[in-house]
Amino acid sequence: MSKEETRQLILNNGARLVHTKGFMNTGIQEILDESSVPKGSFYFYFRSKEDFGRALVDHYDTFISAMFDKYLQDTSHTPLERLRRFFDDSCKFYESNNFSSGCPIGNLSQEMSDISVPIREKLHETYSKMKAALQACIEEARDQGEIAGSMEPRMLATFMLNGWEGALIDMKLSKSIAPLVIFKDMLFGCVLNRVI
Amino acid sequence: MSKEETRQLILNNGARLVHTKGFMNTGIQEILDESSVPKGSFYFYFRSKEDFGRALVDHYDTFISAMFDKYLQDTSHTPLERLRRFFDDSCKFYESNNFSSGCPIGNLSQEMSDISVPIREKLHETYSKMKAALQACIEEARDQGEIAGSMEPRMLATFMLNGWEGALIDMKLSKSIAPLVIFKDMLFGCVLNRVI
Repeated sequence: MSKEETRQLILNNGARLVHTKGFMNTGIQEILDESSVPKGSFYFYFRSKEDFGRALVDHYDTFISAMFDKYLQDTSHTPLERLRRFFDDSCKFYESNNFSSGCPIGNLSQEMSDISVPIREKLHETYSKMKAALQACIEEARDQGEIAGSMEPRMLATFMLNGWEGALIDMKLSKSIAPLVIFKDMLFGCVLNRVI
Repeated sequence: MSKEETRQLILNNGARLVHTKGFMNTGIQEILDESSVPKGSFYFYFRSKEDFGRALVDHYDTFISAMFDKYLQDTSHTPLERLRRFFDDSCKFYESNNFSSGCPIGNLSQEMSDISVPIREKLHETYSKMKAALQACIEEARDQGEIAGSMEPRMLATFMLNGWEGALIDMKLSKSIAPLVIFKDMLFGCVLNRVI
């Protein structure tokens, strides 16, 4: 394997372990063992665990950006339908994963924001991109008259993403789909269907 | 100090450290050092770190229950005003703490739900109590005609608490009050002021 391929393998295994166990609770040795990479060679690929953490956020970002684009830019559906499909399919995904793990970016933001400034800055970039993707879809929904013109897309995107992240914590905690269903029912039945 | 006083001291110091650094990232030795308790005597007070974790949730629960009662049962204000004051004063608290740490129960729920069943069960109890306290206040608001009769208090309480927990993550991440302000503006200006 090339250096870049090995680096990607370490990131893949690290992403899975950190998503389940948390960043501080995942050891470098554990990631290397899973990757069959010789002990002690970690620093050939990353300058530090913090540097690895930043690369991990980029790794998650690539996956999440692709998923957001797939749903929120799918012009075969109206903007409001795209949002609905995004949350519906996310529910199916979490259901098939026994309501575990949640959102890797939300998890790391909770865990690392007060521990590492460089990792926090990287997470903040990705979280802002997630908000921007939702905002763009909300703006389209408003322009097409699917939601009221009085809705402020930037605020709505923040409220929506944060509400979803909170619902994912409740899902992990209660091992139930109910918090996600309540989020969707309140979002589409109460927040987005206002007339003015 | 009595055994119970020392146990409380360990819980106080543990609560502060875990709130800042996370549970898995806080060592027993570190807590004992802060408490000036002799090395190795931890197991005199707690059967295991997991047992300590459960006691820690009870410790947070006592503090949070008192705060919820103080605001949400304060009959010198209307139910809707109580909710408003609760979120307003929470904002001031987080502002004075440089937007750090967030909610100890939300944090542990995110971190520990997939790691320890006994700790998760304890967290689930406390989180359910927090929802119930909000729900009771929402029911009063509905009964007094402050919010629409079509509002379902149980769903609303879940949506409200989860939205707040998500906003707290965003606050830690962005080191800004903005996510909390947006949450309040959307909650009071959009969700709760519906006519039907």
